[in-house]
Amino acid sequence: MTQLEAARQGIITKEMETAARDEGVPAEYIRQGVAEGTIVIPANIYHKSLHPYAIGKGLRTKMNVNLGISEDVCNYETEQVKAKLAWEMKAEAIMDLSCYGETAPFREWLVKNSPAAIGTVPMYDVKGVLHKGLKDMTADDLFSVVERHAKDGVDFMTIHAGLNRETAKHIMRNKRITNLVSRGGSILFAWMYMHGKENPFYEQFDRLLELLRKYDVTLSLGDGCRSGSGHDSTDAIQISELINLGELVLRARRAGVQVMVEGPGHMPISDVRMNVEVAKKLTHGAPLYVLGPIVTDVAPGYDHITAAIGGALSASCGADFLCYVTPAEHLRLPDVDDVHEGIVASKIACHAADLAKGVKGAALWDEKMSWARRKVDFKEMIPLAIDPAKARRYRESSKPEDEFTCTMCGSMCPMKTLDEILNNRNPEDDPFEKK
Amino acid sequence: MTQLEAARQGIITKEMETAARDEGVPAEYIRQGVAEGTIVIPANIYHKSLHPYAIGKGLRTKMNVNLGISEDVCNYETEQVKAKLAWEMKAEAIMDLSCYGETAPFREWLVKNSPAAIGTVPMYDVKGVLHKGLKDMTADDLFSVVERHAKDGVDFMTIHAGLNRETAKHIMRNKRITNLVSRGGSILFAWMYMHGKENPFYEQFDRLLELLRKYDVTLSLGDGCRSGSGHDSTDAIQISELINLGELVLRARRAGVQVMVEGPGHMPISDVRMNVEVAKKLTHGAPLYVLGPIVTDVAPGYDHITAAIGGALSASCGADFLCYVTPAEHLRLPDVDDVHEGIVASKIACHAADLAKGVKGAALWDEKMSWARRKVDFKEMIPLAIDPAKARRYRESSKPEDEFTCTMCGSMCPMKTLDEILNNRNPEDDPFEKK
Repeated sequence: MTQLEAARQGIITKEMETAARDEGVPAEYIRQGVAEGTIVIPANIYHKSLHPYAIGKGLRTKMNVNLGISEDVCNYETEQVKAKLAWEMKAEAIMDLSCYGETAPFREWLVKNSPAAIGTVPMYDVKGVLHKGLKDMTADDLFSVVERHAKDGVDFMTIHAGLNRETAKHIMRNKRITNLVSRGGSILFAWMYMHGKENPFYEQFDRLLELLRKYDVTLSLGDGCRSGSGHDSTDAIQISELINLGELVLRARRAGVQVMVEGPGHMPISDVRMNVEVAKKLTHGAPLYVLGPIVTDVAPGYDHITAAIGGALSASCGADFLCYVTPAEHLRLPDVDDVHEGIVASKIACHAADLAKGVKGAALWDEKMSWARRKVDFKEMIPLAIDPAKARRYRESSKPEDEFTCTMCGSMCPMKTLDEILNNRNPEDDPFEKK
Repeated sequence: MTQLEAARQGIITKEMETAARDEGVPAEYIRQGVAEGTIVIPANIYHKSLHPYAIGKGLRTKMNVNLGISEDVCNYETEQVKAKLAWEMKAEAIMDLSCYGETAPFREWLVKNSPAAIGTVPMYDVKGVLHKGLKDMTADDLFSVVERHAKDGVDFMTIHAGLNRETAKHIMRNKRITNLVSRGGSILFAWMYMHGKENPFYEQFDRLLELLRKYDVTLSLGDGCRSGSGHDSTDAIQISELINLGELVLRARRAGVQVMVEGPGHMPISDVRMNVEVAKKLTHGAPLYVLGPIVTDVAPGYDHITAAIGGALSASCGADFLCYVTPAEHLRLPDVDDVHEGIVASKIACHAADLAKGVKGAALWDEKMSWARRKVDFKEMIPLAIDPAKARRYRESSKPEDEFTCTMCGSMCPMKTLDEILNNRNPEDDPFEKK
C-alpha cells in the first residue's frame, strides 16, 4: 500500500507521524494532505535508512541537492563527500544525477546510507544500463531502467511523461533561443524524433504507474520544456506540457501513486508568481518542485544567488520544494565547496519563503537571533547562524576593542545607545511627553 | 541653480544629457522626472570628477557601495582600494561612512577622484569634526558638520530629519526586539533625549534646505526607524517616521532641493511589496533608496544573499536605488573581498529587477548570453558574465573533452541534442505532424 492509498483509507502511517513531528503539525493534517494529493512523502518501500519528509501545502519548504558523476568528472569518492555534506547540512533530498558508466553501486550506497530521500532521472542512466545507442533502444528498454531504479530503493523519479507528440509539435513550431535545456527531456525528445513515436511514458502511462505504485516511488513529473533563458519563459511550449502534466497528476492520484510536479527554469522576477499560480492551478495543487528559477541569465558563477532570489520568491508564492543551484551552474560539475555554497543559498531561500508563508515556527529562529543581536551577544548569535562556522570565522578575523560591539559601528553601536536610554529611563519623566 | 530648479524652468542640463545618454532615453524624459521629483541626479556643484547618474522612475536600478573607516578598523589605504574597486565595477554611488578620527582627507580624495556620486551621513562624523561629546553639542554644531560636507563636494547626504518628537513618542510606546538600528538615527535620538529637544533637522528644516540648495546636495531622507529584525517590520514607529518623510519631501521640492527617501531594513518577503508601495505613496513618488531589505535574520555571513533577494524584489516593485550589503554585515567591517561579493550580489539584484520592470535594453544582455549558451560557446559566454574572471576560473578548472560542452552534461548536452534535430530536420517530413 502506498502512502497515498493508506491516507485515503484513513491510516496514519509511521512516515506520516515522523513528518508531522518534524513539522510540529498534527499527523492528521499530513494524512489529509497526502490523501488529497497536496502533500507527498517520498518513501520507497526498500529505502530502509530513510528519515521521511513530507513535501507540500502548509509545510516547511524542502530542498534537494543534485550530485552524481558525469562523463568528464568521474570520481565516486567526491560524490560521496558531497552526499555526506548534504546529510550533515540536513538537505531533505538528494538527486543522484549520475549519467555515465556503472551507476548502480553509488545509487545502492546512497539508498543504504541516506536519511535524505533519494531521487533519480532514469533517462540519464539509459546509456549506462543498456549499453546501446538511443536509436536501438525500445520503449521496453526505457521502462527497464525505471524498474531497476525503483527496485534499488529510489524514493522519487523525474519522468518527463508530459512531453508528448502534441507538445513536440509546439517545440517544432515555436521559436526559442535555448530550445530544450532539460537533459532528460531532450533525450526523450530525441528518441521520439528518431523513432517517430509517442513518448512511451505518456503512451504507456498506466504501465509506469503500476510500476511506481509497487515500490511507492513518488512520481516527479519533469518539465522537459522549461525555459533555459528569460527570453523563453512561459511560452506555448512550456504551458502545453504543463497542461499534460495536470492530466497526468489526476491519473497518478487515481492509481494510488504519489505525484509532484517540476517547474521552471529561467524567468524574470515578474513571471515568478504567475508561473507558480498557473502550475498549481493546472496541476490541481500538486506539490511544486522548482528548478531555480534563475532570474537573470548573465550571472554564471553566481547562480546560487540568482536561484536564491527566484527560489525564495517562488516558494513564498506557493512552491514547496527547491532544487539547489550551485555557483558552478552553467560552467562545470560542482565541487564540494560549490555544493556547500549551493546548500546554504537554497536553505536561505527556503527559510525566507517560510517566513513569508507564515510556516509554523519559522519566525522563532529569527526572533532568537534578533534578541541576541539586541544584546550584541556574539556568543549567542553565532550558533544561531545558518552557517555558524562562517559567522565565527568573520567575527574572529576582526575583533573590536569592546566585546559587545562589532568593528562596523564600534562605540556608535545603535543597539547599545538605545538600550542605555530605554533601560534607564523614568517613564514619569519622559522628555518626549513634555509639552 | 539646482538640477531641480533648472528642470522646472525647462532647462536640460549637461548632467541630464549625460544621464539620458547612459539610459538610452530622451533627455526630456530625465528633465521631466527631475522637475516632478520622481528622478534625482546627485551632483554637488563642487564634485568636478563626477559622472552624473540619474536615479528614479523608469530608469536602471542603481547601486551604492558603503565604505569608510571605523574606530576599530582604521586603514585609509584599504578604503581607497575598496573605492577603486567600486569604480572599476561601475557602482553608481559610494557612501563614505567613516565615523572615526579625521575624516576630511579621505572624503576630499574621494570627491577629487570619484566618477561615482559620493554620499555621507554627517551624523557619523560629528565626533570626528566637533571633538566633543553628544551632550555638549548644540544644534548649530550639527548643522556645521552638514555644511562642511556640502562644501567638500558631497553629492547626497542621509539626514534623519523625519525622526521627530512625535515619532520618538512611538519609539517609547511600542515594543520592538531591536529598537533603532540606524546609527545616525540612534545618535540623533540620543541627542534629542539628552537635550529634551526636537530634532534640529526637523525643527530647522528650512535652514537645512537652504544649505543643501546652495551646493545642490541631494537630500536622502534617512529612515532612522527602519526595522532591524523581521519581527519589527512595518510597525507604527516606522510608518510614523515615513509620514513625516512624505511631508518633508514636499517641502524640499518646493525649496528646489532634490530629495530621495531611504527605506527599510529587515522584513519578510511578504512585506516587501507593501513597503515599497506605501513608501512611494506617502512620499509622493520620490526615488526610493532601500537598505537591503534583508529577508531573514539568521544568515550572518550570507547577508549579500538575503539582501539580494530583498533588493531584487523591492526594486522589481519600484525601488530605484539599492544599498549593497556584504557577507560581513552584522559581523565586522567588510574587507576588500567582501566588498567585491557585495557589489556582484547587488548588481545581480539591480539587473534582475530591471528585467522584471522592463527597463529599456536590460533584456538584451540576457539574450546575448542565451544565444552564446545555445551555441555552447564559452569563449562568447565568459566576457558576457557579470564577473568574467570568476566564470573563466570555473570553466578553466574543469574542462570537458569536447570544447563545446561542459562537465555537467558532457555528450548529453541538451543544447547540442536539440540543435542537431532542429538544424537538420526536413519540415516536410516532420514525424510529429504525421498521423
